This record gives sequence, C-alpha cells and structure tokens, in this order.
Amino acid sequence: MQQERPFDLLNKVIGQKVFIRLKNGLSIRGKMSSFDAHMNIVLEEAEELSDGELKSKLGTILLRGGNIIFISPA
Amino acid sequence: MQQERPFDLLNKVIGQKVFIRLKNGLSIRGKMSSFDAHMNIVLEEAEELSDGELKSKLGTILLRGGNIIFISPA
Amino acid sequence: MQQERPFDLLNKVIGQKVFIRLKNGLSIRGKMSSFDAHMNIVLEEAEELSDGELKSKLGTILLRGGNIIFISPA
Amino acid sequence: MQQERPFDLLNKVIGQKVFIRLKNGLSIRGKMSSFDAHMNIVLEEAEELSDGELKSKLGTILLRGGNIIFISPA
Amino acid sequence: MQQERPFDLLNKVIGQKVFIRLKNGLSIRGKMSSFDAHMNIVLEEAEELSDGELKSKLGTILLRGGNIIFISPA
Amino acid sequence: MQQERPFDLLNKVIGQKVFIRLKNGLSIRGKMSSFDAHMNIVLEEAEELSDGELKSKLGTILLRGGNIIFISPA
Amino acid sequence: MQQERPFDLLNKVIGQKVFIRLKNGLSIRGKMSSFDAHMNIVLEEAEELSDGELKSKLGTILLRGGNIIFISPA
Repeated sequence: MQQERPFDLLNKVIGQKVFIRLKNGLSIRGKMSSFDAHMNIVLEEAEELSDGELKSKLGTILLRGGNIIFISPA
Repeated sequence: MQQERPFDLLNKVIGQKVFIRLKNGLSIRGKMSSFDAHMNIVLEEAEELSDGELKSKLGTILLRGGNIIFISPA
Repeated sequence: MQQERPFDLLNKVIGQKVFIRLKNGLSIRGKMSSFDAHMNIVLEEAEELSDGELKSKLGTILLRGGNIIFISPA
Repeated sequence: MQQERPFDLLNKVIGQKVFIRLKNGLSIRGKMSSFDAHMNIVLEEAEELSDGELKSKLGTILLRGGNIIFISPA
Repeated sequence: MQQERPFDLLNKVIGQKVFIRLKNGLSIRGKMSSFDAHMNIVLEEAEELSDGELKSKLGTILLRGGNIIFISPA
Repeated sequence: MQQERPFDLLNKVIGQKVFIRLKNGLSIRGKMSSFDAHMNIVLEEAEELSDGELKSKLGTILLRGGNIIFISPA
Repeated sequence: MQQERPFDLLNKVIGQKVFIRLKNGLSIRGKMSSFDAHMNIVLEEAEELSDGELKSKLGTILLRGGNIIFISPA
C-alpha cells in the first residue's frame, strides 16, 4: 500500500534548502548536503532563526538528529 | 484475541488528514504521506496549531516520531 | 511463583474503557482497541481530561507508549 | 560474593503492599500483582499520594517502569 | 593498564553503608544489599536526605539505576 | 545519489578549530583531536562561550556526544 | 587518518586529577581511578564544586557516565 518511506523525503532534498525546527525552540535553515540513519544532517550556509528572524550565520554544520522536531523543504 | 496492532491505524490513514499532538505543547495537522517503524511521519500541507488556532503553514514535513504524544485521524 | 505478567492486563482490557495518565500532566480516557510491545495503544472515543474534567474529544487515537505513566481499567 | 539480585526483592513482594516513588514527584501505594524485566508493574487497589496524603484511588493499574525512582515494601 | 572497573567499587561496598545522589536533587543513604548491570540497587535501612538532613525513613528499597548521579561509600 | 555521509565532515575537521553548540545553552570552541561513532569528541585548547563571549578556558576535554546540538568548522 | 579515539584520553588520565562538568550544573574534581565503556567513572578524593568553589568533599565515588557533559585533565 505504502510506496514511499519518510527518509525518501531526505534523499529528494539533498542539495536543496531545508527548514528544520529544533527541540530547543530555535530553527535552522540551510542547504542539505548529507544525512544518515540517525537523521544526523550536514547543512551548508546554515542560519539560525528565532521567531522567523535571522539570529546568526552558522556556515556548514553537522546537526545531531536527536534535536530535530521536523524537517521541511524550504 | 487481539486482531489489530496500533500501526495498522497508520496504514489506514495514509493519504488522509491527521492531527498530531506533540510533546512541546504544539499540534500539527496534515495529510499523511508515509511513516516508518519509529513513527517518523511525512505530512503534506502541514499546519502548526497552537490552542487549536492556525499558527503557521509548514508545507511538506518529515516529523520525527519521538516528538509525538498521539496521532488521530482528523 | 509469578503467574501473570503486566501486559496480561492490557490483553484483558481490550474492548474496554481505560484511563491513562500521561507524563505531560494530562490524562486520556477511551476504549482500548489494540497495543504493542512498546505500549503504543489505539483508543477509540478518546477524551482528554485535565484535573478530571473533559478537555476535548479526540476520537480514535494512536498514543505512543513512551508518554504513559500508568494505565487503568476505567 | 553477591547472592541476591535487585529483582529478587520484587519477587518477594508479590501479593504484598508496596510504596513507589515516581519521577513526577508523586507516589503510589498498592498491592503488587506482577512485574517484568522493564520494571513495568501491575498494582491492585492502587492509591496516588501527594506529600504522604491520599490524592486519589486508582484501582488496578499498569505502571510503566521508566517512571519509577524506587520501590519499597510498604 | 587499567586493573579495576567502576563496578568493582559496587562489589566492594556490598553490606556497607553508601550515599547516593539522585538526579531529582535528593540523596539516599543506606546499606547496599545488591546491584545489577543497570546499577539498580537494593538498599536496606534507607533514608532520604534533603540538604544533608534526614527527610524520611524508607526501609528497604529497590532504586532504579537511571536515577543515580553518583554512589559513594558513606 | 548521496556521496557523502555526515561523519565525513568530522573526519575533515580533525586538527582544525570547531564550534560546538550544546543542549545546555552554552557553546564550546576548540581544536578537534578525535571523535567516535557516538560523536564523543576530544577538543584541545577548548574554551567555553556564553552568548559568544569567552566564559572559561577548559584546555583538553572529552565531550560526550549526547550533549551536542551541532558542530561547525570555526 | 585519525590515529586516536576519544576514550584514549581517559586511559591517559588514570591516576591523575580530572575535572568533570555535569548536566545538573555542578562540577566534580577528583583523581580518576577507573572507567568503562558507558563512561561510568570511579574518582578518588572527589570534591563537588559550584561556580568553581568547593561545595562538599565526596571521597571515593562511582559517577554514572550519562550525567557527564565533559571531562578534562585538571
């Protein structure tokens, strides 16, 4: 019945901009470069957002999957 | 005795609208596209709700299962 | 010595009303439809309670076991 | 050297009254009916206590082991 | 190089008084009776302490290892 | 499709300065010396930052991976 | 490429003084006696520090690894 799996979405957005909501209340936006089975994600040109406003430029980051609430194509 | 398993409910609601209550106090509504054994879920046309009011439109999201309290057909 | 196991209680209450206390301080009441080894539970005609008062009608829900403090036949 | 294991205490108190301190600050008292390797416990005639005072009668409950700080024969 | 392992300390203090600091801010003192690989511990004549003062006598308890910050011979 | 994996970034920055945001709200900056599969990391000349200001010099540290939100080449 | 692993640092500091920052905001200083794969650590002559000031002398302690943010040779 089910033809896709959630991680297929991650494969599709490699090289594209994503928006990530974190458990600590902040959000991160950046270009997805790679991910693994724990949802650890490398983002390039990452930016930290607070209430939708740019808070700081982070450059390339490796984000631990356990901090993520959701990921969305930006 | 028991003929169904909890994940059967997820199979039944693929392609349908669901309401998801999260541990951080917010809720998300959207059309369920896929899920996996960790209850990671892809929703389309997702919307974030706060006290039942629309807070923001999220589009397609991949939600990590560990953030979920419950899922309900909307 | 021990003739029963805790999950036997869940088997006995399938099709019956249960009361579930959650870690977030709220409680849920509903008719237990199914469960699995992680204590994920499907409830029908579920209702959310706050201090014993009905807070909202949830309908059918899939509750993640990790949020549960205890389950009791209602 | 060590002749007993912690779970031996649980075996000894089956059918007896126990007092259980929970992580959420509350305590529960009841007659221990069964347990498993995750310290999930079924109590009969369970009562919820707050600061040593009876807060509510819970009847039979299945308590998830992960919520427990300690268990003591009452 | 390393000749001992941390759990050797637990073996040495069986039958002796130990002091245990818990994650919830409280401490427990008692005679260690047994332990397992999860650091679940049975204490006899256990006492709960708050800021070093006796708060309540607990008798025999089975303490879940996950609540422990550290254990010390008393 | 995906040619790199998130941990490849850690391999590339060995011997280089990294910036690490922690779950407790603080950040750490230092030269990455080694890491393992749990993202446990040894930093040399580590410094603790609060709101971007130097709070204390830590020297060589072994940081447990579970405390990390993200790591970035500094 | 990588010649050392994070746990090598622990091997090197056996018998030496270490400083350990804990998740609960406190810190501990002591002589490292042993450790295991969970980063459980036995310290001798351990002292609890609050804001860098000596708060209490703990003697020998077995510290559970899960409470640690970082360990540093003192």
